Amino acid sequence: MRSKEVPTPSLIIDLNVAEANLDRMARYCKSRGVNLRPHTKTHKMPEIAKMQVDRGAIGLTVAKVGEAEVMVAAGLDNILVAFPIWGSDNMRRLAALANGHRILLALDNEDTAQELSRAATSQGSTISVLVEFDTGLHRCGLRPGPDCVKLATRIQGLEGLRLHGLMTYYGNVWGSKENRIAETAIVAERVGTTLDAFAKAGIEVNVVSGGSTPAALLSDRIPGITEIRPGTYVYNDMNTFYQGVCTLEECAVRIVTSVVSVAVPGRAILDAGSKTLSSDLLSSGPKSGYGHIVEVPDAKLFCLSEEHGWLDTTRCDTRICVGDVVSVIPNHVCTCINMHDEAYLVRNGQVVGQSRIAARGKVR
Amino acid sequence: MRSKEVPTPSLIIDLNVAEANLDRMARYCKSRGVNLRPHTKTHKMPEIAKMQVDRGAIGLTVAKVGEAEVMVAAGLDNILVAFPIWGSDNMRRLAALANGHRILLALDNEDTAQELSRAATSQGSTISVLVEFDTGLHRCGLRPGPDCVKLATRIQGLEGLRLHGLMTYYGNVWGSKENRIAETAIVAERVGTTLDAFAKAGIEVNVVSGGSTPAALLSDRIPGITEIRPGTYVYNDMNTFYQGVCTLEECAVRIVTSVVSVAVPGRAILDAGSKTLSSDLLSSGPKSGYGHIVEVPDAKLFCLSEEHGWLDTTRCDTRICVGDVVSVIPNHVCTCINMHDEAYLVRNGQVVGQSRIAARGKVR
Repeated sequence: MRSKEVPTPSLIIDLNVAEANLDRMARYCKSRGVNLRPHTKTHKMPEIAKMQVDRGAIGLTVAKVGEAEVMVAAGLDNILVAFPIWGSDNMRRLAALANGHRILLALDNEDTAQELSRAATSQGSTISVLVEFDTGLHRCGLRPGPDCVKLATRIQGLEGLRLHGLMTYYGNVWGSKENRIAETAIVAERVGTTLDAFAKAGIEVNVVSGGSTPAALLSDRIPGITEIRPGTYVYNDMNTFYQGVCTLEECAVRIVTSVVSVAVPGRAILDAGSKTLSSDLLSSGPKSGYGHIVEVPDAKLFCLSEEHGWLDTTRCDTRICVGDVVSVIPNHVCTCINMHDEAYLVRNGQVVGQSRIAARGKVR
Repeated sequence: MRSKEVPTPSLIIDLNVAEANLDRMARYCKSRGVNLRPHTKTHKMPEIAKMQVDRGAIGLTVAKVGEAEVMVAAGLDNILVAFPIWGSDNMRRLAALANGHRILLALDNEDTAQELSRAATSQGSTISVLVEFDTGLHRCGLRPGPDCVKLATRIQGLEGLRLHGLMTYYGNVWGSKENRIAETAIVAERVGTTLDAFAKAGIEVNVVSGGSTPAALLSDRIPGITEIRPGTYVYNDMNTFYQGVCTLEECAVRIVTSVVSVAVPGRAILDAGSKTLSSDLLSSGPKSGYGHIVEVPDAKLFCLSEEHGWLDTTRCDTRICVGDVVSVIPNHVCTCINMHDEAYLVRNGQVVGQSRIAARGKVR
């Protein structure tokens, strides 16, 4: 079956493209001496995680305990939960995973550390902890410097926890190359401030974990970063494209969708809406539209209902008919993937398999 | 377990509230002599569909064949696929369902009708067809009047199909009551034009299916409508609230979420982001924010990352701490539900069960 003969709508992953993307990032990290701990939130598939580890990734990143459980069940190890989880159920499950596996958690406050310590202690496990600090995104994370040292010292005193280093997520490195370079300079300064404070306190920092696909290739501008956690790079999407971080050919995921109605003049309706593509708007580039139509780029996907994609065809040279099949590169591949229970795997235009997106929908 | 003691984040459904919502719509439809064919896209659960049928619904509405399959497997029947599906796989599965079950499909073009006829014929089944016409939303549907008659006549000549009537979706009936009333008048005129054309052609119209929650209570302003297809009314959300169609107390679904970080001044971060709430913005009311925080309404959920909800707490009187548990009423409950594999069921503040959202993620 050719890739455009799949039932519509379907999510397809071009393995050739994904592998080339994985190879490129692996080579970059090796050449710069920075470790790679890819975020699995993008693909949510142990098969892809294994491809990342096979190419030298030192471990994996997840956001939820449920995602870590899926990866561990598939034989993967050394997993950082880059989210300050809360609640006895989440803590208990994380501590259980840490029995026999290397589990790390990033957190930014003592209450979370104490809860985690209680859970680890009750199960006789040890969890490595990274102190999260804020390098300009202003989401989670302590102010760079002494506040981080203070929390690190408390963590050192808690049973079941092992202070392992620092984590930051610099999602503020976004947009045009100029903007990304300017924000990277801010990140570098804040990382430096924090490392200085730890050096002054005489506390060893084994790891400084940084992140993101748009910042990945700027990592050598941030002295002190020992590992990075890009996620999107495996597939790319219109957000990475508009930042100049990839070409359209380097986008590995497409939604294959049929035209189902052309009854309203100037419109063509697709069988893919927000429950197939996600309703994420572009957050880079032109900031409009819900995805790029590969075969008919002048048809604008200007609106999504839950199951209908609305194409504006008034500027189209091509006549679009019911039954035409087109491919959409999503704005945000991470939220798009999360809509789907399974994907078709493609090589050289041919479907070579199907895969369950095993960690999809792991909200906890 | 009390409803706020569930692991976070979780989706909870207050059954008392949902039942009252179902009762109210059932009473309205009965009093006005209009049939109710609820859209299951909102709840995606056979258990709720059965509650709708038990209260007098004549059948159900779905958007995807996979949703119809879930409902049929649970013993439900008389199902309208209110979407012009395409492709041999979708057609084959629909025709298979129509063997032994009453299945209806809405469509607006002859190509789709011919494909459907081929599928039905090859399986020896009969599918009832509604001709979709456009009453002002300008999404799918033929122009009101003779175009509809022409397609209906073609359908009458196709084997395996039974012309059953008309369908329209008037999502343009939206917003303030004044706007909804004004748009309802447009809908009524277009329904009238179409029925006149069928009367003139001497073609019987068994059913005229109309729709939507915001328009439901205005149905008696549209002469000729025989059934309505509201979906959201079972749970309600901030979009229906801001249209004055429900109170906050009539919103049956909440996301229970923990505060996980307050490290950045003026912020509190929740463990529910766009992969838990969906990234749908409000499309009524103030058109900002990603949901209503029940316990701290002055905390604004102004931004979502995939797994982080960003609260602006600068105008909060209450001090918000890590570990605080709050409840979010989503902007758009249909896309929010679709993020979750399961829900906790609640009565009188107590968890009374868990239910799988069996039709979640049925993209086909």
